[in-house]
Amino acid sequence: MHPDQLARTVAEQLMLAEGTTPTWGLELLEAREGYARVAMVVRADMLNGYQTIHGGMVFSLADSAFAYACNSRNQATVAQQASIAFLSPAREGERLIAEAREQSVVGRSGVYVISVRTEDGRDVAHFQGLSRTVGGEVVAGDPPAIVHAHRRG
Amino acid sequence: MHPDQLARTVAEQLMLAEGTTPTWGLELLEAREGYARVAMVVRADMLNGYQTIHGGMVFSLADSAFAYACNSRNQATVAQQASIAFLSPAREGERLIAEAREQSVVGRSGVYVISVRTEDGRDVAHFQGLSRTVGGEVVAGDPPAIVHAHRRG
Amino acid sequence: MHPDQLARTVAEQLMLAEGTTPTWGLELLEAREGYARVAMVVRADMLNGYQTIHGGMVFSLADSAFAYACNSRNQATVAQQASIAFLSPAREGERLIAEAREQSVVGRSGVYVISVRTEDGRDVAHFQGLSRTVGGEVVAGDPPAIVHAHRRG
Amino acid sequence: MHPDQLARTVAEQLMLAEGTTPTWGLELLEAREGYARVAMVVRADMLNGYQTIHGGMVFSLADSAFAYACNSRNQATVAQQASIAFLSPAREGERLIAEAREQSVVGRSGVYVISVRTEDGRDVAHFQGLSRTVGGEVVAGDPPAIVHAHRRG
Repeated sequence: MHPDQLARTVAEQLMLAEGTTPTWGLELLEAREGYARVAMVVRADMLNGYQTIHGGMVFSLADSAFAYACNSRNQATVAQQASIAFLSPAREGERLIAEAREQSVVGRSGVYVISVRTEDGRDVAHFQGLSRTVGGEVVAGDPPAIVHAHRRG
Repeated sequence: MHPDQLARTVAEQLMLAEGTTPTWGLELLEAREGYARVAMVVRADMLNGYQTIHGGMVFSLADSAFAYACNSRNQATVAQQASIAFLSPAREGERLIAEAREQSVVGRSGVYVISVRTEDGRDVAHFQGLSRTVGGEVVAGDPPAIVHAHRRG
Repeated sequence: MHPDQLARTVAEQLMLAEGTTPTWGLELLEAREGYARVAMVVRADMLNGYQTIHGGMVFSLADSAFAYACNSRNQATVAQQASIAFLSPAREGERLIAEAREQSVVGRSGVYVISVRTEDGRDVAHFQGLSRTVGGEVVAGDPPAIVHAHRRG
Repeated sequence: MHPDQLARTVAEQLMLAEGTTPTWGLELLEAREGYARVAMVVRADMLNGYQTIHGGMVFSLADSAFAYACNSRNQATVAQQASIAFLSPAREGERLIAEAREQSVVGRSGVYVISVRTEDGRDVAHFQGLSRTVGGEVVAGDPPAIVHAHRRG
C-alpha cells in the first residue's frame, strides 16, 4: 500500500474505533505520511463559562490530528507530552481546522506541531506534541481493522 | 465573603455556565483560594482508538480544575498556555480526580500545577498551566451570577 | 529600512548587548522578519555529567534564536513560556544550528517553533516558544543602538 | 547507603563530571531522594540584551536541579521534555535558588516541578520536566565515581 494510502486507512480505522470522533463530530480532511488535517464545528456543549470554546476541546481537536499523524506509518504510537498556547477564542458555530505536521522522528520519539485555525485563517492555538512508538501495528488484515493489543504508557 | 467561599461560588457559577460540565459529568469536590479538585468518570464516548481515555479528555478535566483555581479570586482569568505529560492510560469506568494547586501569581500571570489520578492514586497525567488575568469579575450580584463581559485572548 | 534589514540590525544589536553571545560563541547566520538562524559549537564547558551537551545549553541556543525572531520587527518582546523536547545528544566539537520560524502573531502574543540540529541534519531538540510584546522599541538612533528602557515580565 | 545520602553522592558526582557546574558557579544546597535545591548567582556574562538574566540561564539552573532530582536513586535518567514559564526578570548579582520536587514516577517516566526564586522569595520561573530512565547506574565503586556508559536519547 502507498504510504499516504496507509496513513489514510490508519486514520479512518482509528476514527471508527474512537468513542470521541462521533461525539465531537470530527471530520478527516486529509491524511498523509506524517501529516493530518481534521475539522470540528464548535457546539454549545463545547463552551466554557465565558461562552467560548473550552480549552480542553481545542486541545482535543489538535490531539486527534496529532494521533493520526504520528500513527500514520501503522506503528502504534502514543502521546507522551503536549504543550499548547491559546491565541484567540472561538465561538459556537465556528468550524476549526487542526493541521498536524511532523517535525522529526528519532528512534521511537517523534515531534509534531499542530495549528488550530478557523476556516478564515484566524489562529486559535498552536500545539507541540511528543510521541513514542510502543511496538505493534495499528491496523491489520484485509479489509484492515484495528489491532486491540496496544497499551498506552 | 470568605476567600474560600468566594472560590466555591465562582467555581459553581462557572460550572453552571459551561456547556462542558454536564457533557463531561464533572463533579466539584473542593474549591478554595488558588485550589480546586474535580472528578470525572471515564465513559465509552471518551475513549480513543486504543480503548483508553483520549488524551484530550484527560487534558479537559485538568484544564477545568485549572480554570476554577485561577479564577478563584473572582478576577476573570484565562489560560494562555498549558503543558501535559501522560503517564498511564485510564479505562472506561475509572473515576479520575484532578487537583489544581497554585504555584505562583506575579502581576497578571499565574502558574498552576494539576495532577490527574485515579481514585486509588495511580498517576494518569501531570499538567502545568500559565494563566493571565484579563480584567473584570467572574461573578457579581446577589444571588451571584456569571458576568458575560469577558473575552479570552 | 527594509523589514529584513531591520530584523538583522535588531539581532546584531541584541547580540552586542548580551553577556551571553560572546560567552557561548553564538554566530548569527541569518535574520529576517519573524525568522532567525544561529550557530553554536559545543564546548567542554557546556557538557553535562554524561559528557553530552547540557540541556540548558541546547535550550539557550534555541531561546536566543527565538529572541531574535520575536524581536525582529523592533518591538520589544519577551519570552513568556517555552517547551522543549530533546531528541538526541550532541558531543563536544559538534556545531549546532537553531532555526526559529514564526507560526503566528495575534495581538501581543506570538508563537515560534525552533529546531536545533547538527550541521549534518541530526535533530537534537525541538522548541516551541510563546512571546509577549511589551511596548517600546528594541533599537533606535543612527547608528542604531539598543534602547535600555524595557523590562521583562 | 541511605537513600538521601545516595542522592547527595549522585548529585555531587554529577556536578564534578559536568563542564557546566564550575562555569555557572552552581552550588548544591540540598539533595534527597527525588529532591534537589541548587543556587546560582546572576553574573554579567549571563545577561540578555535587556540586561536581565537570559532565559537560557534560568532554564539551565532549573534543568540542573531537575537532573539531580531525577537521578537521585542512582538510575541513569535523562530529560525528555521540559516546559518553563517566566514570571519575573532577575538582575546581575541576584542569587537564584532552584528547587526540584518529584511529582510522580511511573515505570521509566518521571515528572518533576522546579521553581526558580530569588533569595527573598520572588518567583522568577516555574519549570515542569519529564524524565526517562535509560538503564545503568550513575555512580559506582568505592569511593563512588561516575559511570560513563550512558547515552542520552
